Amino acid sequence: MQTASFPDQRVQQLLGIDTPIIQAGMVWASGAKLAAAVSNAGGLGLIGAGSMKPDLLREQIRKARRLTLKPFGVNIPLLRGDVEDLVQVVLEEEVKIIFGSAGSAKRFTPRFKEAGCVVAHVVPGVTFAKKVEDAGCDLVVAEGFEAGGHNGVDMVTTFSLIPQVVDAVSIPVLAAGGIADGQGIAAALALGASGVQIGTRFAATVESSAHDNYKQAVVSADDRATVFHLRQIGPARMFRNAWTERVRAAEEQGASPEELKEILGSKRERLGIFEGDLEEGQVEAGQGSGLIRDVPTVAELMQRLLEEYASTTAKFCT
Amino acid sequence: MQTASFPDQRVQQLLGIDTPIIQAGMVWASGAKLAAAVSNAGGLGLIGAGSMKPDLLREQIRKARRLTLKPFGVNIPLLRGDVEDLVQVVLEEEVKIIFGSAGSAKRFTPRFKEAGCVVAHVVPGVTFAKKVEDAGCDLVVAEGFEAGGHNGVDMVTTFSLIPQVVDAVSIPVLAAGGIADGQGIAAALALGASGVQIGTRFAATVESSAHDNYKQAVVSADDRATVFHLRQIGPARMFRNAWTERVRAAEEQGASPEELKEILGSKRERLGIFEGDLEEGQVEAGQGSGLIRDVPTVAELMQRLLEEYASTTAKFCT
Repeated sequence: MQTASFPDQRVQQLLGIDTPIIQAGMVWASGAKLAAAVSNAGGLGLIGAGSMKPDLLREQIRKARRLTLKPFGVNIPLLRGDVEDLVQVVLEEEVKIIFGSAGSAKRFTPRFKEAGCVVAHVVPGVTFAKKVEDAGCDLVVAEGFEAGGHNGVDMVTTFSLIPQVVDAVSIPVLAAGGIADGQGIAAALALGASGVQIGTRFAATVESSAHDNYKQAVVSADDRATVFHLRQIGPARMFRNAWTERVRAAEEQGASPEELKEILGSKRERLGIFEGDLEEGQVEAGQGSGLIRDVPTVAELMQRLLEEYASTTAKFCT
Repeated sequence: MQTASFPDQRVQQLLGIDTPIIQAGMVWASGAKLAAAVSNAGGLGLIGAGSMKPDLLREQIRKARRLTLKPFGVNIPLLRGDVEDLVQVVLEEEVKIIFGSAGSAKRFTPRFKEAGCVVAHVVPGVTFAKKVEDAGCDLVVAEGFEAGGHNGVDMVTTFSLIPQVVDAVSIPVLAAGGIADGQGIAAALALGASGVQIGTRFAATVESSAHDNYKQAVVSADDRATVFHLRQIGPARMFRNAWTERVRAAEEQGASPEELKEILGSKRERLGIFEGDLEEGQVEAGQGSGLIRDVPTVAELMQRLLEEYASTTAKFCT
């Protein structure tokens, strides 16, 4: 077995972790159990506040503290109506690592920095990345079009986005979108990233709170299994199913934002990811699903990622 | 300066070249001059037959033979109405390397193999890649959603596509889409590719026959400069301009294929790439354009790609 060594140590130093692998904060999949397992395995776990009310978020933060002594963080979608309450909770609970997504990095970063937090923000394009740096964030997550869940309208892919963001900012860049194995980690680092954020691969682990149907859907997915819809009202990548086919038909017929909101309805993500309704839910997952063939524990997965990364990079060193 | 070394030698051996860098056959940009320059610099140049009548293709093949003693190839879009004539020309002229794209690899591969050719075929997905292998091709080019020009409807990105195709076939895989520098080459190889096919970066060189306006548009492009349209009648990636905005508006209003064909009209690619009309032409280019900042000669570019590749891979070897 090769030993994994990472050329850039900035992310590890900033976050106090061994390995620059961040588990993405995901709705309905990443509670305390998953986040703590990733942190215990040497990466950084994130509690995904996107599907949590403030009280549940507080409970999950406290639970994570019981499950790990290592650093972990919270992902907060900044466009939430009750975002002030979520921010209040993470500050009161003294969470020291915040990943923001959606919305402006400018609004909360000063408060987080004042509280001594390390702050990262997820972006889908170069212009946004510069704004994140200007807002005073410590890290930027550049997320490509292949990523599961909510995404940018410009559809810039990981392969194109990462090097352009790396050129545009001085802070370390975490690559996200399509990374599901150690080869992907090596590729992301070749493109100039200092570390990676991995979503779907962690959503299909034992410790993820996603429904078993969801995990099995990831395991059986091929390269064409996901679709990208709802550009007009909130673009997202998810598995093709009966509901997304209705969305597609409506979009092809020129449906208005109002009509699309009607077809979207409410609680689709919960239905798909947490309740496991694979036909009527919004079953968010990335294009990397086609590379995922099992549901390991986080500890098994982390070790495998490091082994794959080490053997991939070793082939360049003869 | 580091020396570039490539872990997998199969592509070099199959094609008789030094460096597994293939210049994509592109409409209106890649004639004999570009192809010969790439081959002379140690890669593989391809004459793009897509924008040539059979007689012009014959002339360009003969011209390339005068400009280089090294192997070069021809790219043939197999859906062309006069494809039989193009095939006849390459066989009569004894071209020994054929890259097919669009259409079925099955139809012509037996004839090419009988004539002693090395045959590759470009695909946008895993299922197609398996068909290419079954058809008897020697190589498969897996081209991601970020690539310029015509593309698949499933929008699978380079980062997701390459490792899934590598897992699915035994023949060597060339990665295409978004590769514009040596970091991209290293990333593609980390993902399991045996070599790369590069388009837009070569279209913006001195030897490319694209219009100077085209080359300058590539140089000034950012990460969001390209758009992907015409999924219903022939999906393609190109620079956003006055004409693509009309296409977008029509698509959002649910335009029929017939209406889109009307808006497309004829000779749009020639207008954009060869005549340099950046507002009314179909100015095909990849998302990697944002990484391209000059118009070097092919020799300069090839040396730079190798240096970047060597320094990128070297950072994994400490």
